[in-house]
Amino acid sequence: MVYLDNAATSFPKPQQVGAAVARFIHEIGANPGRSGHKLSMEAAESVYACRKAVASYFHAPGAECVSFTLNATYAINFALKGVLAERSGSAHVVTSNLEHNAVMRPLYTLKRPYTAAVVDLADDACTLRNFEASLRPDTSLVACTHASNLCGRVLPIAEIGALCHKRGIPFLVDASQSAGMLPIDMQAAHIDFLCMPGHKSLYGPMGTGILIAAHGETLATLIEGGTGSNSVDFAQPDLMPDRFESGTLNAPGIVGLHAGIRFVRARGQESYVKEMRLARMLYDGLHRIPGIRLYTPRPWGNGYVPVVSFNIASRSSVEVTSRLDKMGFALRGGLHCAPAAHIAFGTIDQGMVRASIGAFNTPEHITALLAAVKKLAEEKDT
Amino acid sequence: MVYLDNAATSFPKPQQVGAAVARFIHEIGANPGRSGHKLSMEAAESVYACRKAVASYFHAPGAECVSFTLNATYAINFALKGVLAERSGSAHVVTSNLEHNAVMRPLYTLKRPYTAAVVDLADDACTLRNFEASLRPDTSLVACTHASNLCGRVLPIAEIGALCHKRGIPFLVDASQSAGMLPIDMQAAHIDFLCMPGHKSLYGPMGTGILIAAHGETLATLIEGGTGSNSVDFAQPDLMPDRFESGTLNAPGIVGLHAGIRFVRARGQESYVKEMRLARMLYDGLHRIPGIRLYTPRPWGNGYVPVVSFNIASRSSVEVTSRLDKMGFALRGGLHCAPAAHIAFGTIDQGMVRASIGAFNTPEHITALLAAVKKLAEEKDT
Repeated sequence: MVYLDNAATSFPKPQQVGAAVARFIHEIGANPGRSGHKLSMEAAESVYACRKAVASYFHAPGAECVSFTLNATYAINFALKGVLAERSGSAHVVTSNLEHNAVMRPLYTLKRPYTAAVVDLADDACTLRNFEASLRPDTSLVACTHASNLCGRVLPIAEIGALCHKRGIPFLVDASQSAGMLPIDMQAAHIDFLCMPGHKSLYGPMGTGILIAAHGETLATLIEGGTGSNSVDFAQPDLMPDRFESGTLNAPGIVGLHAGIRFVRARGQESYVKEMRLARMLYDGLHRIPGIRLYTPRPWGNGYVPVVSFNIASRSSVEVTSRLDKMGFALRGGLHCAPAAHIAFGTIDQGMVRASIGAFNTPEHITALLAAVKKLAEEKDT
Repeated sequence: MVYLDNAATSFPKPQQVGAAVARFIHEIGANPGRSGHKLSMEAAESVYACRKAVASYFHAPGAECVSFTLNATYAINFALKGVLAERSGSAHVVTSNLEHNAVMRPLYTLKRPYTAAVVDLADDACTLRNFEASLRPDTSLVACTHASNLCGRVLPIAEIGALCHKRGIPFLVDASQSAGMLPIDMQAAHIDFLCMPGHKSLYGPMGTGILIAAHGETLATLIEGGTGSNSVDFAQPDLMPDRFESGTLNAPGIVGLHAGIRFVRARGQESYVKEMRLARMLYDGLHRIPGIRLYTPRPWGNGYVPVVSFNIASRSSVEVTSRLDKMGFALRGGLHCAPAAHIAFGTIDQGMVRASIGAFNTPEHITALLAAVKKLAEEKDT
């Protein structure tokens, strides 16, 4: 099986990730931050070591700003609703037209007015102008993806952040497709809330997400419970990261995530360059196959993450993906939990076939996929 | 190290738990329910197999009623707030006086009026009368623990459930200390929402919690996002379990939890009997040491879970636990995230030293702990 579904979760994981998880379960195993005995302290130190690694990698103001969540969706909900709970019901939100349901569904549920700024696939200056034009006097939050999970387009978050900073508007970034892939300096980019999964390009296990909140103490909470801190008080502690870490953490997963982050840092930015080379190889190969529909310009470094989506003429993306599966290729068809983006591309009915490249893909994988797609494209449309 | 902190998390775990987690990470590894390829389908089947095992073990109306959460606290928040969101601001809640902050902090945050029914440590009929007397015409929810994490006392949930059922009041049970320890038939006990961790007496890894909701479709949600289902719609699906499973699941943890549940079922109820024997051995031994304060009657089967808390005269529980740690015993002092229960026992300042027994404890562990406590008790009070 050639795995090209890394935007859903990276696979395979580095051997040291599963090994770290199993070692934690069997050798440390106690609940971090709950008791004072040696095993519990060792568990707490393991979790703190990962917290520090995350803070350092993303230039967080401090390790206490890093809260571990179940996944990126929880991080986005905590920040988005935490900010908006304090604002009046009419407070406006600016987002992009390429968002995942992790942003769209909370917004929809809150019934807040929002404007989806159009992302230009070729021109960052145009995207930035669209964001600026979307701001209103009552805009209370700008929340957008760093890179589209559908087409891979990277948004100019540093420039959007500067815009927000100038107006005093909190800025939330969904780094689900970029964290571990592209460098992110949240302070330089004026990001107040950076949300991400641990199990995609950070190569941790599923069950890990991260909310880095520059100012978390003042946010309203969605979940309250035992934190092992200030236990005498029925009020949820203001203290970060405890405020967003009620109940027992996924400590084994967090330890695995730390192993993943070490793997990512050891590879360095070269890996992104290599993966983008494979993305362009795929794009160029698809471009030469008659009947293939591509939806973006040729992806360039820092403008895209290595995600290439396409269709074979008007054929169902789910059916094509299923055929590819039978030929030994794991890709994802359908809507990718991003109907807003599919509406933007006019593919809400057809969906797209998405290939997303990871650390363990090779040029041979791309060559083989191109041959398979070519074969399918040459079939008579059924 | 003699580990007697199983009420925080069970340790060690059966070997097959960590092995199942690592195997999933390295051999299956794809995101369940997100794509249609073989690995994703295999991941989805692994998660579903655990869902079915949970439903069967707790007599849920169906596997779709089982949602996987980060931990028990999330399950409680989802159910408690999901029910109360639909009721008027003055809707009343009945709980017990032995609750963990996982129940108390959400209640406090919601600012709902509540009555804490007093649990009688010796007499279930008295506890039941106290619950009945706490009900008001505007009571919208009864939410209580199945067994106290501080003193181990089991509440008569089947009788409380029957009371709720008669009045048409939803009933939420926090089974954090009982799930996997005592049999729970949620339909027979008229439990609408059964909340539990996967990492305590079900012997799964940390990072797993379960909400079994008999009627989940109508609950308000706290978290929305991609579910891999009905993706075209910005509204969170009504469909269970998706409604409470936004974003990527802790699939490796869930697979480990399934291994834990298999371990629990293979051991059968004999293990509870064995652990209660150790609890009584500890209780009786402590009872014979001058200066030891015990807070409950001698624990009996089905009336208690194997948790024994005590103090040495008026000495700080945290200091005593720290001394025991240095002598090779992992126990938990302080407040155990249960200030309400400590208020009931008059130990909000001193806390208690808690020993909680698990599958891998032996009579030798108890004998050794008793010798250590005796030694500490014979010291001059500092």
